[in-house]
Amino acid sequence: MKAWHFTGTHQPFTKVEVDQPTPGPGQILIQTKAAGICHSDVGILEDEKWLDIMELPAIPGHEIAGTVVAVGDDNTGYAEGDNVCVWPMGTAGKAYGYSRGGGWGEYVVADIEDVLRIPEGVSFELAAAATDAGMTSYGAVVEAGKLQKGEKVGIIGFGGLGQIGARIAFLEGAEVYVAEVNENIWDAAYAAGATKVVKDITELSDIGLNLIVDFAGFGTTTAGAIQAVGYEGRVVQIGMGKLESTIDTYPLIMKHVTLVGNTGGSRDAIANVLKYMASGDITPAIEKTDFDGIAEGVDRLHRGEVRGRLVALY
Amino acid sequence: MKAWHFTGTHQPFTKVEVDQPTPGPGQILIQTKAAGICHSDVGILEDEKWLDIMELPAIPGHEIAGTVVAVGDDNTGYAEGDNVCVWPMGTAGKAYGYSRGGGWGEYVVADIEDVLRIPEGVSFELAAAATDAGMTSYGAVVEAGKLQKGEKVGIIGFGGLGQIGARIAFLEGAEVYVAEVNENIWDAAYAAGATKVVKDITELSDIGLNLIVDFAGFGTTTAGAIQAVGYEGRVVQIGMGKLESTIDTYPLIMKHVTLVGNTGGSRDAIANVLKYMASGDITPAIEKTDFDGIAEGVDRLHRGEVRGRLVALY
Repeated sequence: MKAWHFTGTHQPFTKVEVDQPTPGPGQILIQTKAAGICHSDVGILEDEKWLDIMELPAIPGHEIAGTVVAVGDDNTGYAEGDNVCVWPMGTAGKAYGYSRGGGWGEYVVADIEDVLRIPEGVSFELAAAATDAGMTSYGAVVEAGKLQKGEKVGIIGFGGLGQIGARIAFLEGAEVYVAEVNENIWDAAYAAGATKVVKDITELSDIGLNLIVDFAGFGTTTAGAIQAVGYEGRVVQIGMGKLESTIDTYPLIMKHVTLVGNTGGSRDAIANVLKYMASGDITPAIEKTDFDGIAEGVDRLHRGEVRGRLVALY
Repeated sequence: MKAWHFTGTHQPFTKVEVDQPTPGPGQILIQTKAAGICHSDVGILEDEKWLDIMELPAIPGHEIAGTVVAVGDDNTGYAEGDNVCVWPMGTAGKAYGYSRGGGWGEYVVADIEDVLRIPEGVSFELAAAATDAGMTSYGAVVEAGKLQKGEKVGIIGFGGLGQIGARIAFLEGAEVYVAEVNENIWDAAYAAGATKVVKDITELSDIGLNLIVDFAGFGTTTAGAIQAVGYEGRVVQIGMGKLESTIDTYPLIMKHVTLVGNTGGSRDAIANVLKYMASGDITPAIEKTDFDGIAEGVDRLHRGEVRGRLVALY
């Protein structure tokens, strides 16, 4: 089968021909139909720390959607022709596209514990987006953020993840406030259900926000969130725009603020996002490429030329 | 009765003669036997922000232990001669020594919801120490820190609160590690049950600490705790040695660290500390003064001349 290989930091992705993998017991073989291209795929080219969790050569691609073409035994619960996507973190502690084969190959073997059925009406490209952008946004707002219906939630950064996060907060019954420096996308934030949109989260200090999710992560945003959040409020840190933040510990202590860092989300997070996609409530912008366009797509992401989620369709 | 008055920031405490308060329904009158003198009593002299929660003139003293001398009605559950101490935060949202009369008067009225009986064998001065130093340490380690038996716990700062916090962690079944710059008190940390004592918390990064409680709060300690704590670890921020900290958000995010600020503790926190005092398991060092020595005691605290908890005995 055709696949892309990652062989080491600062090495270009290479297109190779490799053996098609074979599903074992409790596994299925998926013919990839859509595979996402993510900022962390830029990361593995640039930063050696990713090697800690990778087995080389790796077939990247942690956002996988496709069709079942073979099953490892009679008890997988799946049959040829089923449309599925994959929880990228992997129950077995091996992450797809890092320490086991990912979606940048024509076929992928997945453990059935990691597989989710794609609901009727959800395209392969949307399902691929659900497995990372969707999972991470849901994981931040609902899982790490412990969002309760009726709470007041601040979303910092209305970019790719923030848009989905704001929408999830609205759909889960929160009163949503957005802090976004780019006024050109304020209309989109109001359309997603925001009660109020401001430039800086500290402008919302009088709201008594129960939860703030920082999808931007510019250091000042973390500090601003701690200033702005209400008594016993929670701040979830997702964005890594800058990896250092100077925070004021006085409001942290006096308001009993909880600051929690998070990555990813659970398998259920994906299932919930897929439901919202099936009902038409979450419709992230998708930009499409094809298998051969993957390496170029990573370059375009790196140069900031991609609007929406970039997905390769096979 | 005799009392000390606080009349405003930068004004000296003054000794005054005021009317003895009268307990209403659901209240008791306590003859003060021991009243703690705390660093926050230095704070009210220096920092105008305390005025936000004070009613002037105030009788300070939020660590109160004494004997019941009158009850407001037949249903208080208390009788003359009962020895009691007081949860300083106050169920009614009015804190003793700030927005209602405190222990620096010969008599104090307390709501029965805020009152705890002093167990047999616990002195008035120990009980007074239980109501703030004890409560805050227990609140940090067990309540905000959610300590579970068998966990590995790091305590930063083996000062007044840290000593009690380390001891509570040990008594609650944790494996205790202490980070303390002053090597002269390392022996005391080992005697309190510490497995290992180091100068800087980052020396414990390979332990996989589940919880770190920062009683020092020098900014670098918060940052070091986030570096040192294990996967999904919790950091509780109590100390306010410096009110700013530059933290590295990368380990916060990747390790899913929770940083939570805290003050005080519940009424139950005091009850649990009193039990440990009654069994002889917690014996904080106490330095004694008397009613007339209170203002001078605050000055001595300010100059760093006090070892242990300073309590005025009447």
